[in-house]
Amino acid sequence: MQNHNGANTHASLNGDDDVCRYSDHFDSDNEVKEETGNEAVRDCGKKLCIIKKTRYSDGTVRLRNPNIELMDQDILYHLALGSESHDLVEMFGDVKGTRFESVEAVKAKVTEVLNQLAEADFHHCFQQWKSHMERCRDRQGEYIESENVATFVCMGGTPKRMETFAFYIMKEIGHKLPTGTTLTDISQYSYRYSMYKVGPVLSISHGMGVPSIGILLHEIIKLMYHARCKDPIFFRIGTSGGIGIEGGTVVISEKAVDGLGNDCYQVPMLGKIVKRPALLDKRLSRELKALAHPEDPYETVIGTTMCADDFYEGQGRLDGAFCEYTESDKMVYLQDLQSKGVKNIEMEAIPFAALTHHAGIRAADICVTFLDRLKGDQVSTPKEVLNEWQRRPQELVARYIKKYLQTKGRISFDGHGSVAVKSPRRFKLVQQESQTFE
Amino acid sequence: MQNHNGANTHASLNGDDDVCRYSDHFDSDNEVKEETGNEAVRDCGKKLCIIKKTRYSDGTVRLRNPNIELMDQDILYHLALGSESHDLVEMFGDVKGTRFESVEAVKAKVTEVLNQLAEADFHHCFQQWKSHMERCRDRQGEYIESENVATFVCMGGTPKRMETFAFYIMKEIGHKLPTGTTLTDISQYSYRYSMYKVGPVLSISHGMGVPSIGILLHEIIKLMYHARCKDPIFFRIGTSGGIGIEGGTVVISEKAVDGLGNDCYQVPMLGKIVKRPALLDKRLSRELKALAHPEDPYETVIGTTMCADDFYEGQGRLDGAFCEYTESDKMVYLQDLQSKGVKNIEMEAIPFAALTHHAGIRAADICVTFLDRLKGDQVSTPKEVLNEWQRRPQELVARYIKKYLQTKGRISFDGHGSVAVKSPRRFKLVQQESQTFE
Repeated sequence: MQNHNGANTHASLNGDDDVCRYSDHFDSDNEVKEETGNEAVRDCGKKLCIIKKTRYSDGTVRLRNPNIELMDQDILYHLALGSESHDLVEMFGDVKGTRFESVEAVKAKVTEVLNQLAEADFHHCFQQWKSHMERCRDRQGEYIESENVATFVCMGGTPKRMETFAFYIMKEIGHKLPTGTTLTDISQYSYRYSMYKVGPVLSISHGMGVPSIGILLHEIIKLMYHARCKDPIFFRIGTSGGIGIEGGTVVISEKAVDGLGNDCYQVPMLGKIVKRPALLDKRLSRELKALAHPEDPYETVIGTTMCADDFYEGQGRLDGAFCEYTESDKMVYLQDLQSKGVKNIEMEAIPFAALTHHAGIRAADICVTFLDRLKGDQVSTPKEVLNEWQRRPQELVARYIKKYLQTKGRISFDGHGSVAVKSPRRFKLVQQESQTFE
Repeated sequence: MQNHNGANTHASLNGDDDVCRYSDHFDSDNEVKEETGNEAVRDCGKKLCIIKKTRYSDGTVRLRNPNIELMDQDILYHLALGSESHDLVEMFGDVKGTRFESVEAVKAKVTEVLNQLAEADFHHCFQQWKSHMERCRDRQGEYIESENVATFVCMGGTPKRMETFAFYIMKEIGHKLPTGTTLTDISQYSYRYSMYKVGPVLSISHGMGVPSIGILLHEIIKLMYHARCKDPIFFRIGTSGGIGIEGGTVVISEKAVDGLGNDCYQVPMLGKIVKRPALLDKRLSRELKALAHPEDPYETVIGTTMCADDFYEGQGRLDGAFCEYTESDKMVYLQDLQSKGVKNIEMEAIPFAALTHHAGIRAADICVTFLDRLKGDQVSTPKEVLNEWQRRPQELVARYIKKYLQTKGRISFDGHGSVAVKSPRRFKLVQQESQTFE
C-alpha cells in the first residue's frame, strides 16, 4: 500500500512495476476494482493504481487529514470563519430545501403551495420537464439532478480584482440578490484575504507568493469539507510576465515548474523536504482553451508556467534593489526558459497545482501577461490598459462557468445582477435622468 | 576583491585567511583604511574586511544595483509610485526648507521674518540653544544637527494593523496633521500593500510569507534611495507562534533560520540558488530589549526565530487540509527546535533579515506570540485579547522611536495626534456632549 507519509507518491512510480501509487484523481474514468478505508484500487490499463479517496460517495470533499473530524471546532483563522461558530453548510453548501418540524407542517405547506399554483405555473413546470428530458436525451440518457451544482472557487491576487470579478460574474450568470442588498466581504475581519460569494461561485483574494496562497488553499479545502461542497473546481485568475508573447496574452498553464525547473512543490515538513507533484487538470485546461473565441482581440495559449519566489532577482529582473548579474546573463536565462516551453512567470502556480491535486480537486491556472520579459522588466503599460487585460482571464472563466450552469439548467435569464430590469431602454433612461440631478 | 556575483560573501569567509569578504555593515566602528569605487576596506582587528558601500557620504542609501541610476524612470509597481511621476524626495525625504528664486526673494523673506519676531520668540530660541548645548555636553561634545533625522520603516502583515500603528505612533510622537486632514493610504492604488507616513515613520503592510515581504523590501529599499532618506532603520512588527513560551510574549529575533535550519535566504536566481546571510542588527535588538519595562505585564525575550514557508504542514501543525505525520512526530520536532533556541515561528524573518543586511540597513524583527505551539495548533484566544497582544511589539518600537526623537530634540509636546488640546478635561466633555446629539 501507499507509504504512511503519502507524500512520495510521485517518486514511488519508479519503484514498483505492477502498482502505480501515484494518486491521479483526474483524467480517468477507469473502473475502481477495490475499496479499502480511505484508499481505492483503480485499473489504469497497464497498471493497478492505488489512489487516496478524496471524495465521499455524494461527491463532497473528503480530507486527507484524519485529525479534523476529531476536533471540537476547526478555526479557519485567516478567513475569520469557524466550523462551530458559523453554519458553514448553510453558508457555503448551497443545500436547497426547508426543514419541517412535523408531518402536519409538511402537509399544510403542500396544500398551501398547491392552492397557489396558477395555470402559468403548470405550463412552466411542463416546459422544465421537457427541457430536462431533451438535455437527458442529448447526454445519451444521463440524467442530471439540477440541484447538484459544483462550487467554483475563483482566486486571484488582490482584493480589488476579486471584488470586481464577483460583481462581473454576478451579472454574467444572472445571479440576483434580494432588493436593497449588495455583496459583502465574508472574510473582512480576517484582514488577510477577501472572499465574496455569488451563488455557486466564490471569489477570493490570495495575496502574493507561495506561502500566502498556500495558507488560503489549506483553509479553502477545509471549508469545502466543512460546507459539504460537491465536486469543487478551482480557478486561479492571475497576472504574470510573458516570455516571447505579447502583453495582454492569456496563458492557461499546462504544468508548473519552480525557479530551478522542478515540477513539484517542496515543503520543509518537520525538518525534511516533502515533494508533491504540481499537476493541473489537463482536461479542464483543454476545455478552457476551447472557449477562447477566434474573434477575441488577443491570443489564448497553453504552456508551461514558472512559479518564482521573488519578483525581482528571482525572475531575472535588472531593476530590483540589488542586481549582481548582467543584461546578457538575464537574456541567456530567459531564452533558455523559452526553449523549455515556459510561456509565463508568476508566483503561485506550484502550490496551487500541487495542493489542489493532492486534494483531488480539478484546477486551472489562467493568467494574463502584463509585458514580454524578452523586451523589458518594468510594467509600464497604463493602468487602464492593464485593467482591460486583467478582465481577459476573468472572461474565459466566466464562459466556462456560464456554459456549465447552462447545461445544468441553472441560467434562466440573461442577467442584470440584483436589479430586475423590465425594459433595458427605459432602465437606462431612468438611470441617466437620476444621475443628472445628483 | 569581492567576486562579481557578490552573493557568496558568506561562503568565501572560509576561503581566504587575510581578507574577510563578508560585508558586515553594522556593529562596527572600525576604521576604513581604503576606499575604491563602491567598495571600502575596513580593519576589523584580525582581518581586513572588504565591504560594499551602502551609503553615500551624507548617510543616504546607496543601491547595490548599478542599473537603477541609468533608468529613465523606476516604477515601484507594487507601491503605485514612480521615481519620475512622483517627487519622492519631497514626499519621503523630509527635506526641510524653501527654495527661493533669487537673492532678493531671500532678503525680503528674512526681513519679513525678523520684523515678525516677538520677545517670546527670542526667549524660545535661547531656550532651544541651551537645550542643544546641554544635550551636546551629555554626549561628550558630539553635536547633532536636529534636521538629520533617520527614517523609521515599520512593517507588519495586515493593512489594518499598520493603519492602527500609524495612528498610534502619531499620538506617541506628538505628530500633528493640518486641521481637517487625516492619514491616507499612500499605496491605495497598488491594491497590494498599504503605506502610511507619520513624520519620519513609515507604516507599511507586507502581506504574508517570504515572497510578499521580499517584493516590498526591494521596492522600499529603492524608495529609500530615490527619496534620499538618511540612515533608515527597519522594524518588522509581527505575530508568531511561540515555542515553550506563554501566548502574549514578545520575541526580539536574534537570528533567523528556515525550515531546514539554514540561517540564510536562498533565492533561485537565473536557475541557481544564491545564498545571503539572514543577519539582524544585534545592537538594535539589545537596545530594544533594554526598553522592555519590568512592569510590563508580559515577558520580552531575545531568541532565534524560525521562518516557515507554510502555516500548516511547514510549521508541523496537525490541523491543515493535509496531515501525514503524527502528534508525537510533531512534538519531537518542536522540542528539537526548542533545544536549538528557537523561541518562535513566523513567515517573514529570513528575507527581512537578509535583504536589509544586504542593503546595509539596520533592522529588527519583533513579534508577539499568539499561542504556545507545545500546547496546541489553533489560535483560539479571543480577538480582543489578540488585539491587545498585537499592540505589545508596537509599544516597544514606539518607545525606541520616541527615545530617538527625544535625543534629537524632535519631540516637543506630549502629543494628541492632529487635534490641539488646550484642556484635556474640557476636550473630553465637548466630545461626550457632541456624541450625545449624534
